[in-house]
Amino acid sequence: MTGKIRVGVVGYGNLGKSVEQLIHEQDDMELVAIFTRRNPADIESIYPHTTILQVTEADSYMQHIDVMILCGGSKTDLPSQSLEFAKKFNTVDSFDIHEKIPAYFEAVHEVAIAYGYLSILSVGWDPGLFSVQRLLGEVIFPKGDVYTFWGKGLSQGHSAAIRNVEGVVDGVQYTIPSELAIQHVRSGKALDLPEEERHERVCYVVVEEGVNRMKVEYDIKTMPHYFAPFKTTVHFISKEELKRNHHQKIHGGHVISRDRATGKTNQQLMEFSLSLMSNPAFTARVLLAYARAAYRLYKNGETGARTVFDIPPKYIAPQTPSELRRKWL
Amino acid sequence: MTGKIRVGVVGYGNLGKSVEQLIHEQDDMELVAIFTRRNPADIESIYPHTTILQVTEADSYMQHIDVMILCGGSKTDLPSQSLEFAKKFNTVDSFDIHEKIPAYFEAVHEVAIAYGYLSILSVGWDPGLFSVQRLLGEVIFPKGDVYTFWGKGLSQGHSAAIRNVEGVVDGVQYTIPSELAIQHVRSGKALDLPEEERHERVCYVVVEEGVNRMKVEYDIKTMPHYFAPFKTTVHFISKEELKRNHHQKIHGGHVISRDRATGKTNQQLMEFSLSLMSNPAFTARVLLAYARAAYRLYKNGETGARTVFDIPPKYIAPQTPSELRRKWL
Repeated sequence: MTGKIRVGVVGYGNLGKSVEQLIHEQDDMELVAIFTRRNPADIESIYPHTTILQVTEADSYMQHIDVMILCGGSKTDLPSQSLEFAKKFNTVDSFDIHEKIPAYFEAVHEVAIAYGYLSILSVGWDPGLFSVQRLLGEVIFPKGDVYTFWGKGLSQGHSAAIRNVEGVVDGVQYTIPSELAIQHVRSGKALDLPEEERHERVCYVVVEEGVNRMKVEYDIKTMPHYFAPFKTTVHFISKEELKRNHHQKIHGGHVISRDRATGKTNQQLMEFSLSLMSNPAFTARVLLAYARAAYRLYKNGETGARTVFDIPPKYIAPQTPSELRRKWL
Repeated sequence: MTGKIRVGVVGYGNLGKSVEQLIHEQDDMELVAIFTRRNPADIESIYPHTTILQVTEADSYMQHIDVMILCGGSKTDLPSQSLEFAKKFNTVDSFDIHEKIPAYFEAVHEVAIAYGYLSILSVGWDPGLFSVQRLLGEVIFPKGDVYTFWGKGLSQGHSAAIRNVEGVVDGVQYTIPSELAIQHVRSGKALDLPEEERHERVCYVVVEEGVNRMKVEYDIKTMPHYFAPFKTTVHFISKEELKRNHHQKIHGGHVISRDRATGKTNQQLMEFSLSLMSNPAFTARVLLAYARAAYRLYKNGETGARTVFDIPPKYIAPQTPSELRRKWL
């Protein structure tokens, strides 16, 4: 009994690994175990003392874990995982398919209420910290504008789309916000650029030998939804170069809010920016902070689903409210 | 009975005037009256239909005002005003003397609990939104650094100090953050500049005819605490120029947090910035948002003192939680 918050992790991909690494910075938390669908014997953890177990063993840890951080993917893992784990644990997850969040929220809420646990959903930077900034922008400037720009960042979805193109061996895609659009917003000008001109897409592609590069480039640039509406650039590079220069999961972006453009006189501008050399490491940091909040809300007798909008800042911090007021107010 | 939140204002300086103007952007709020220590007959309000009353009449509005926005100064007005009004109203204020906040909080908390009202203290951008960002930086990067830079901004306190110098007719002072310091922090370098080299001070001064300007400049630059430790520049200008170019209460700043500088590989950077053409107008916007939260918490049966650290984002927004999830998550 250390008095620390006892944390479990489900899923041992990039995100789970980041949680394993970063939980050691949190003085009030300890990692009990990581649960995986793979054979634990096949897995080498970052720290040799980390306990890695089959996910089927999670049930026997109900009394030993205060909050479970769900590190599965949003498309296939989380929708079922969350519903299962919300029956037995307090949870946090980073479900990030924006348009499906309302239904996902209702489903988890129902289970968490019925079983008496608390789940904080869609935690990370977007959805997550960016969402809070968008809400703040809307509230502070009710007649104003809120803009989100993403990047420069590696997009997993678009990289996967490239790799599905015939003749492509490997590839990555960076989303890059239009500097012109950002400058327009910051300088108080009306932003009359359509959605698809606010970001561009830059691809680094490794192709099979002898393949028709013009056809590959054409196939990428004309891919509906993913690339067709955007300014897209395709660079052909070697396997070695891809490995050397494009292995980091960089990301970031800006949420910029302002009162409605009224010339210079009354311009008020609020901006929140992230520049991340590792997207999963940062998401893990946010998950850890909200894991603390989930456990505290549960200890206060609360149950059901929550999002970042429901959480007072004091609950994510390890310090007491009076320490927080003294140090950070 | 409009169903709107009924707001009162105490104090009709720059901040009170901004609240009068900006409350009209809030569809769920209405301004009941502004209370002043001056003779209401001597005051011209921005909108002719605004009710302006003697502050002694406030008591008779206890049943007609849901939340009172206290717009007095932190030095002399708020310490007594808050304690008085917390006995009869829910309140929000922008008390901003950082080192006195803990004692101020305890005093107001005691009264608000005893009389059954709710007060949110020290609301604005610093303390306020910047405080939340500092807390966030501390929580996300527990082994990292959090830096606050202020400006470019007009400092009321330093401007007043200039005006107290012998031979000075009028003057303003801008606090300007060191670009070098900001670049160091953003680029992940260790910031080895001492506190007083992170900002500089630029003064625009109007002097009496025939005065010894070198002496005025010397008196300003050697003023202990205010100017002596900082790089200070003094410009002598005419009364007309001061009026024309330096009448706007501009302000702003940056809260920058990052993990401890570890070279390029893992650098994570989070930055919140404000650029304000009107400091009081922005503070008024934040006060209005938290006035909504104060009233809602009170309606939920909560009493006592609160700060921005205690308030979930959903409470400052007029929309329902499900609308917020759909639109902003």
